[in-house]
Amino acid sequence: MTTNELEIVQSTSKKDKPSQDQVPFGTIFTDHMFTMEYEAGKGWFEPKIVPYAPLTLDPAAMIFHYGQTVFEGLKAYRTEEGRVLLFRPEKNFERLNLSSERLSIPPIDENVVLEYLTKLIELEKDWVPSTAGTSLYIRPFIISTEANLAVAPSKTYKFMIIMSPVGSYFTGGLKPVTIHVEDQFTRAVKGGTGMAKTAGNYSSGYQAQANAKKLGNADVLWLDGVEKKYIEEVGSMNIFFKINGEVVTPALNGSILKGITRMSIIELLGTWGIEVNEKKISIDEIYQAFQDGLIEEVFGTGTAAVISPVGELNWQGKKMIINNHEIGELSQKLYDTITGIQTGKVEDTMGWTVEVK
Amino acid sequence: MTTNELEIVQSTSKKDKPSQDQVPFGTIFTDHMFTMEYEAGKGWFEPKIVPYAPLTLDPAAMIFHYGQTVFEGLKAYRTEEGRVLLFRPEKNFERLNLSSERLSIPPIDENVVLEYLTKLIELEKDWVPSTAGTSLYIRPFIISTEANLAVAPSKTYKFMIIMSPVGSYFTGGLKPVTIHVEDQFTRAVKGGTGMAKTAGNYSSGYQAQANAKKLGNADVLWLDGVEKKYIEEVGSMNIFFKINGEVVTPALNGSILKGITRMSIIELLGTWGIEVNEKKISIDEIYQAFQDGLIEEVFGTGTAAVISPVGELNWQGKKMIINNHEIGELSQKLYDTITGIQTGKVEDTMGWTVEVK
Ligand SMILES: Cc1ncc(COP(=O)(O)O)c(C=O)c1O
Ligand SMILES: Cc1ncc(COP(=O)(O)O)c(C=O)c1O
Repeated sequence: MTTNELEIVQSTSKKDKPSQDQVPFGTIFTDHMFTMEYEAGKGWFEPKIVPYAPLTLDPAAMIFHYGQTVFEGLKAYRTEEGRVLLFRPEKNFERLNLSSERLSIPPIDENVVLEYLTKLIELEKDWVPSTAGTSLYIRPFIISTEANLAVAPSKTYKFMIIMSPVGSYFTGGLKPVTIHVEDQFTRAVKGGTGMAKTAGNYSSGYQAQANAKKLGNADVLWLDGVEKKYIEEVGSMNIFFKINGEVVTPALNGSILKGITRMSIIELLGTWGIEVNEKKISIDEIYQAFQDGLIEEVFGTGTAAVISPVGELNWQGKKMIINNHEIGELSQKLYDTITGIQTGKVEDTMGWTVEVK
Repeated sequence: MTTNELEIVQSTSKKDKPSQDQVPFGTIFTDHMFTMEYEAGKGWFEPKIVPYAPLTLDPAAMIFHYGQTVFEGLKAYRTEEGRVLLFRPEKNFERLNLSSERLSIPPIDENVVLEYLTKLIELEKDWVPSTAGTSLYIRPFIISTEANLAVAPSKTYKFMIIMSPVGSYFTGGLKPVTIHVEDQFTRAVKGGTGMAKTAGNYSSGYQAQANAKKLGNADVLWLDGVEKKYIEEVGSMNIFFKINGEVVTPALNGSILKGITRMSIIELLGTWGIEVNEKKISIDEIYQAFQDGLIEEVFGTGTAAVISPVGELNWQGKKMIINNHEIGELSQKLYDTITGIQTGKVEDTMGWTVEVK
């Protein structure tokens, strides 16, 4: 891998920052972005921080035709004293390389790229908002850029990082959501790309999501592609259940994403003496537990919301109301602890945060 | 749907055309391209033929993140008298709309777009090569362009058509290929996007293809994602078997592409009094037929090669040599007839060709 010196081209003008109370998700971007190029035989080169600007690509660039691309999503948080913290960013670059492997994209040097990200955030520090629940969303991604219609891995790639201030996911505190259990459409299957964070996994869910929304649901809970029986994950979240005192979550089986929030919750619960049982969980089993009155809490986990309590699951016309549509005790405690660590309010005994100086 | 007048901006300079004997696939493009825009609430607008040029897109454009995109592939052929023919182009735009529906992309007006394509080819007529086996490859595609990181359908799209002269798929006549039957990786599954021509379906096959090539195979034959038992299709081809006098091909089950070559072969064989049995075909059944000496021919079908005879199938270490690695009689006759119709050498009694004046 070739890695040259980072070049920084400062933007001559600064954009206006949005009001902290009304930040729309993912449509406003900071003044700068990071870019780096790849060529077969040469490796990654030309790491640059440059003013945020449009990309110019040949219409035959492979990204437009065969979807060879991967991405990540993480956040920078501001503490009350004004410090800026990242949450386990090394895990995101580790996962980016896992995704890249599945998509036949060359790996990046995780440590070096983390340094570049740190430099980018240093430059954009003013963009990290401070109101409760806000953060700076960070989107690293790699696209295949070779202009060639052959169905084969690209010989050139572009790695980029763009950043966007984002508002609170829940305005006015946690709020339980209603989720549709999808038994027609499939997100991913064994041997497919489900464990990778790659573009095609997301748009393939739009039809199911639209159907679920029409029926009054906020999102879709996917079942496995083979038997349509085992629980996988929500659109952009992993899922946990507390059943009769036991915490369970679907095991990493190759078709669900290895969520960093999921991983953190398992580790955190471990320190609290609560073991998470990672296993195959059938929807029938959940429905049975519901009928037996044993389901105490259900929650989704992901970078966007951290913890998203589930108040209702709809499956084949059957409605499962969870914990009387109220936030569970464990959900709330996990939310408070993790967001507390992320924003420096709770001591980080796990060594999860990385300060950007 | 808004459709305005087609605007044509002629290129001021013409590119050199490649030598007809050495045209690399998909890397040389004609002088012009077609573009059209979409905005929610406004429909498709601004149809334009403009000089072939790079695209400028925001780094947050949805195509780079969530893979909401569809494409098509068809060809223009030159007859001996110099006429230019398209082969069932209306079927490609029909399928484009089917793909778009699966990806939550708004439909195009198939007839109007076919007229635009015809205009584009008229302008680029000199680019349609004439040597045996060559053609002008046509790539219509739609990309999502909204700059927004929300995981939801885009509110803006760009439809484009680019064209590339392509050489003969088989230099020196048909040649049987060796194919690996893939039993680990999955291309598509019921409820997924397998029946759509969308980017993510292609790069997800690169790992399997690389493994197959290492073992000396030209391509991969995919099995179903659920049981890894039923035959689906090859990378960019549908597949047919002639077993003990009967022609069979996997039924359209939602996870394979509805190939236009496949459809044409079924219709053509019908006029020859040969019925094609479209059904679920297990790989065990094929292996059994092979052991019983009943497999007469195997061939892939698609726009690229039209007919690609299969000389060898490798499945779990078992080698099935088909027809002594030789081209089957039916394969050759289908190839000659369809390429004959496409290039005006065989009378088009099916009404499949559309002449571009
Ligand atoms: C499909 C999918 N599952 C789960 C997650 C949660 O992962 P993480 O906790 O790393 O954000 C995400 C979002 O990143 C996702 O896209
Ligand atoms: C996955 C797949 N299957 C089959 C085909 C063959 O379809 P057609 O005969 O329309 O070219 C193609 C190529 O277009 C393809 O991409």
